[in-house]
Amino acid sequence: MTRVVAGIDIGGSKVLAVVLDERRDVVASVRLPTSIGAEGVVRSGAEALRQLAQQIDVRAEDFTVVGVGVPGLVEVGSGHVSHAVNLGVGGALALGPELSRRLGVPVVVENDVKAAALGAAQLLGLEDADLAFLSIGTGLAAGLVTGGQVRRGARGAAGEIGHVSIDPEGPVCRCGQRGCLETFASGTAIAAAWPALNGEPPAASLFAAAAAGDSRAVRVRDTFADHVASAVRLLVLTCDVEVVVLGGGVTNVGSALLDCVVLALQRQAATSPFLATLNLPARVAVVPVGSAMGAVGAALSGLAAFTSGDTARRRSDDGDRPA
Amino acid sequence: MTRVVAGIDIGGSKVLAVVLDERRDVVASVRLPTSIGAEGVVRSGAEALRQLAQQIDVRAEDFTVVGVGVPGLVEVGSGHVSHAVNLGVGGALALGPELSRRLGVPVVVENDVKAAALGAAQLLGLEDADLAFLSIGTGLAAGLVTGGQVRRGARGAAGEIGHVSIDPEGPVCRCGQRGCLETFASGTAIAAAWPALNGEPPAASLFAAAAAGDSRAVRVRDTFADHVASAVRLLVLTCDVEVVVLGGGVTNVGSALLDCVVLALQRQAATSPFLATLNLPARVAVVPVGSAMGAVGAALSGLAAFTSGDTARRRSDDGDRPA
Repeated sequence: MTRVVAGIDIGGSKVLAVVLDERRDVVASVRLPTSIGAEGVVRSGAEALRQLAQQIDVRAEDFTVVGVGVPGLVEVGSGHVSHAVNLGVGGALALGPELSRRLGVPVVVENDVKAAALGAAQLLGLEDADLAFLSIGTGLAAGLVTGGQVRRGARGAAGEIGHVSIDPEGPVCRCGQRGCLETFASGTAIAAAWPALNGEPPAASLFAAAAAGDSRAVRVRDTFADHVASAVRLLVLTCDVEVVVLGGGVTNVGSALLDCVVLALQRQAATSPFLATLNLPARVAVVPVGSAMGAVGAALSGLAAFTSGDTARRRSDDGDRPA
Repeated sequence: MTRVVAGIDIGGSKVLAVVLDERRDVVASVRLPTSIGAEGVVRSGAEALRQLAQQIDVRAEDFTVVGVGVPGLVEVGSGHVSHAVNLGVGGALALGPELSRRLGVPVVVENDVKAAALGAAQLLGLEDADLAFLSIGTGLAAGLVTGGQVRRGARGAAGEIGHVSIDPEGPVCRCGQRGCLETFASGTAIAAAWPALNGEPPAASLFAAAAAGDSRAVRVRDTFADHVASAVRLLVLTCDVEVVVLGGGVTNVGSALLDCVVLALQRQAATSPFLATLNLPARVAVVPVGSAMGAVGAALSGLAAFTSGDTARRRSDDGDRPA
């Protein structure tokens, strides 16, 4: 039988699940609201996968492997998740084993930003480049892909650049440090500097006001872009990835974000011949609005782990099978 | 015939050359003063290698491969070096091809910090760990070893963390930016804050005065250690290497530097539960004073390139040999 690989991106508001064909193209997708809390998260994920299976006329247990992208601290080996605050999951949740048990399929769990980095490489045709996916959402973090693989690091902290301090006089961060990059370059930072009215997303409100010529909005927007540019610079000066791909909720404002970040990188290079040699303005990209790279990347994570034989079902079966 | 691998570390004041045996242990070494300028650098290197050959009763052309570590921007493919300001080499120098021609051996050139990172992994028995070698000398830069190999990055800029700005109000850096980590955590930064008398190295003078209880020296030393700790944190939060090894000229002050950096990491972790989970104080080490990791690492770089068939002689022979 052919392989049917599913990927699911579980976020704080919605669950997006996709099926990839053999060429890694999306052939089906399902979008559901996320139910919050440990049981809600598992139920939402299982339901999305069942609907996905129906869409392509198979049963959920026919999926070859399911990859799951989820915020928080993921123990990839066991499929356990903790600190997924956006999902209302404070403690540990055995997400991989639970989904595997309910659906009868091998499940692989990965941190959502790391999964999205794999998805970005695939969707932008950058599979051969070392890249960083810079997720600018509520917080700020990067996923690194080098040599075609997600870099996890010694303790899963690779890419946690949101908690590098860039200003000793900056705001206190939720991590306890002061002046972390995340306090300047995140959706939360925009919301603090530009509280939007009428429930509009602050980033959309800010970029619209700046485009309309509001001088305070222009200042706030350009300062924000300067800090995103700092994150790009940081990623290149440490890992020297070829491309930094901007993603996360804030990129829903569209191409204006990339334009502003490129201008910020150009401004910074103008005062530093050293920075100019790095040619940063040509090395930054943005994900298309509405692209499914989190779910696609989750599917690719699942496929990679399945190919190397490392999935939740296999592990949970260890006790029942002869070695 | 058995392999005889030589490595040479060319610094601003001295040249250190070593021979490794099959078990990668140092079996001979030569130390000479460096003659400055393009011709001087080539001559110093060639002379050290000839003396090294004599020491083990072979001719220089009997070396299987010679690895060279040198400051500046190295084009590893061609063996060319530029911006080696400490060596009095401003423009480009065809160091690999020149040494290869004079000695009749394959030569591989690598940036000295990147080479030292390989040497540190070998000398500290950390070949299997991902590590960063943090070179604290005139400037500040890191060499990254992941999966047993030096990470060079898309444009050779991997590890250039000295030019990450950590303070928008900080001093102007030689690179044109403001508040670069190098302006706080380098020998140059110590010399500016603690100008030593009688030609004593400023770092030695500072650490001695602090150990003797001079309160201003204690403050300068602890601020310096805080910034070295920031560099350690930065390396872990981006690449999540398992170990950060402190090296470079400033580490000649001995174990007091490591002690102060560990204390700084402990202070920082005390205010941040997030940092505390990274267990940074246990992940930092220092190279033993007087160890030859630059030269050993250069030899290992040479060996690695030789094994993969990528050396200066082979390339320079391309025109003469049938394909």
